[in-house]
Amino acid sequence: MKLKDIGEFGFIDRIAPGGAIRSRGVVKGIGDDCAVIDIAGPDYLLVTTDLLVEKVHFLMEWAPAETFGAKALAVNLSDIAACGGRAEDAFVSIAVPEHVNLEWLEGLYRGMSDLARQYNVNLLGGDTTSSRGDMVINVALTGLVPREEVMFRHTARPGNVIAVTGYLGESRAGLELLLSSRDLPSDIAEPLKRAHLAPRPHLSEGRSLASSRACTAAIDVSDGLSSDLWHLCADSGIAAVLQEGAIPVSDALARAGDLLGIDPLKWIIRGGEDYVLLVALEADAVKNLKQTADAEGWMLVPIGEFVEGRGMRIIRRDGSTESFGPTGWDHFRSD
Amino acid sequence: MKLKDIGEFGFIDRIAPGGAIRSRGVVKGIGDDCAVIDIAGPDYLLVTTDLLVEKVHFLMEWAPAETFGAKALAVNLSDIAACGGRAEDAFVSIAVPEHVNLEWLEGLYRGMSDLARQYNVNLLGGDTTSSRGDMVINVALTGLVPREEVMFRHTARPGNVIAVTGYLGESRAGLELLLSSRDLPSDIAEPLKRAHLAPRPHLSEGRSLASSRACTAAIDVSDGLSSDLWHLCADSGIAAVLQEGAIPVSDALARAGDLLGIDPLKWIIRGGEDYVLLVALEADAVKNLKQTADAEGWMLVPIGEFVEGRGMRIIRRDGSTESFGPTGWDHFRSD
Repeated sequence: MKLKDIGEFGFIDRIAPGGAIRSRGVVKGIGDDCAVIDIAGPDYLLVTTDLLVEKVHFLMEWAPAETFGAKALAVNLSDIAACGGRAEDAFVSIAVPEHVNLEWLEGLYRGMSDLARQYNVNLLGGDTTSSRGDMVINVALTGLVPREEVMFRHTARPGNVIAVTGYLGESRAGLELLLSSRDLPSDIAEPLKRAHLAPRPHLSEGRSLASSRACTAAIDVSDGLSSDLWHLCADSGIAAVLQEGAIPVSDALARAGDLLGIDPLKWIIRGGEDYVLLVALEADAVKNLKQTADAEGWMLVPIGEFVEGRGMRIIRRDGSTESFGPTGWDHFRSD
Repeated sequence: MKLKDIGEFGFIDRIAPGGAIRSRGVVKGIGDDCAVIDIAGPDYLLVTTDLLVEKVHFLMEWAPAETFGAKALAVNLSDIAACGGRAEDAFVSIAVPEHVNLEWLEGLYRGMSDLARQYNVNLLGGDTTSSRGDMVINVALTGLVPREEVMFRHTARPGNVIAVTGYLGESRAGLELLLSSRDLPSDIAEPLKRAHLAPRPHLSEGRSLASSRACTAAIDVSDGLSSDLWHLCADSGIAAVLQEGAIPVSDALARAGDLLGIDPLKWIIRGGEDYVLLVALEADAVKNLKQTADAEGWMLVPIGEFVEGRGMRIIRRDGSTESFGPTGWDHFRSD
């Protein structure tokens, strides 16, 4: 049997039971954006790690090295954001094939350290080795979060409002443009490609939501709205109802949909690598939280509601209801 | 310019200055076995990460998957040992090529979790992705060490005794046997290959030395005795004199040397992946430490002395003295 036959999450389900050797200190192990560790102080320690592999996650010709360095760190920062933390220290392992030169590697680290500086994160070493195949970049990142503010996936409740902190679908549309020979006007194509290549980690959004204590659950949208909403639903034991009309669609995505004859909802629902936060909010706190977001200059858009039951539904603009499953982006499964 | 032109350490020297964004909380960043972080409790947090790449670090046909899973964790445990810590939580990222099946992956995790259980270490997730090239395994590992007991590389002093906690050179000889078609009797070949494939992390040795407070500096021998001794010398600003006659040579290594017509010292000095600890000891504490080691059932063998000055020398059995440089194992440099 191959990994693609059961998918990444199927594999995690198989190996996870063997990994929990000791419960002391572990607030949350496998199965959230970060592991959450009790280090006996006022803050919990957060740890996350993500691997970027050439030809799987990126092609060298898409962008300069700086872009991939920044993204390798950004996707980890996004995990810290989803737990409500601030990021602390990054540990970078790289496997370097013969076709990569030193200038490219220095660009990679420049991109990483420029982004690290924005978030006051150290790059504290790691491991450097050669590779006979492709370029591989692994970042392990620590963070801290006040223990009473940590946000999990499994704590959403029926009646909570579902909200997002940014546009969805742009990254997936951008990826499709990067992979195709199809050209769109650059004022449409560029922001979409940029959404894929240079995601902004929503760390300030995460801190603001976490410190409000009115955000009951959170995840970052890395695998796609359908997949990550399913994580919140399944882990919390509840169902979700989205309102299509409430989901924010960026101008670039709407125009790309028009020109290509594609319903933007396809990119939004089955997308991936959006790196916005998908959260559950106490319904009576939404108005205040939106005012906070407006004042602080970030987006907070309610797109539906968690309800009792199982599964995920979306109420389309025409009033019809469709069910959907966790068919988001999984690197091992084709659609 | 390519990475191999300047080597791993040359590259680290180039990128390290860009990584130190914030000094708060960082006791030691780049340039030791682990990063050492002040988490405001009685213990420091240790973090280390190591990347194993197929065809660079191992060939699938050498051993069952369990072996590589255990080794991927063991090399990180060894870094924690070198800082005197106990290991806590491991985070495993894997990139899986098409030629690897699920049974192999489950063997990999079985090997890892069997070793993790021995040291009470959790496997708390990580990242799983596909690869178009080779199998890649990255482990990031945390540990804790009482803050007054942490061991560094830069704190050895002239007059300190140089000691090792096990045999050197076996792993390198084992690697050469794995890579060659040369056959030796299995009672010689097997322990050497095993030294390479299944190193035992010296965690109990590290804890014992650290808690003695008489071990002034430590490193694990991953790049080879010459390279790692050079790290201790350079970082501490002192010199080292080894006594060839004092360096322990295992029976298997001595017999392999006889049969192959190779001086075992070559494997010992330029070896690598030994994963024993190389330490600096207060001279007047050596006798007591050796008694402790005997009582606890581990090896502690004085092999020389740190002295004022620069460089490394070895006094051969015939009384002659040779200088040597940090020409140990560096994955990017050929000899």
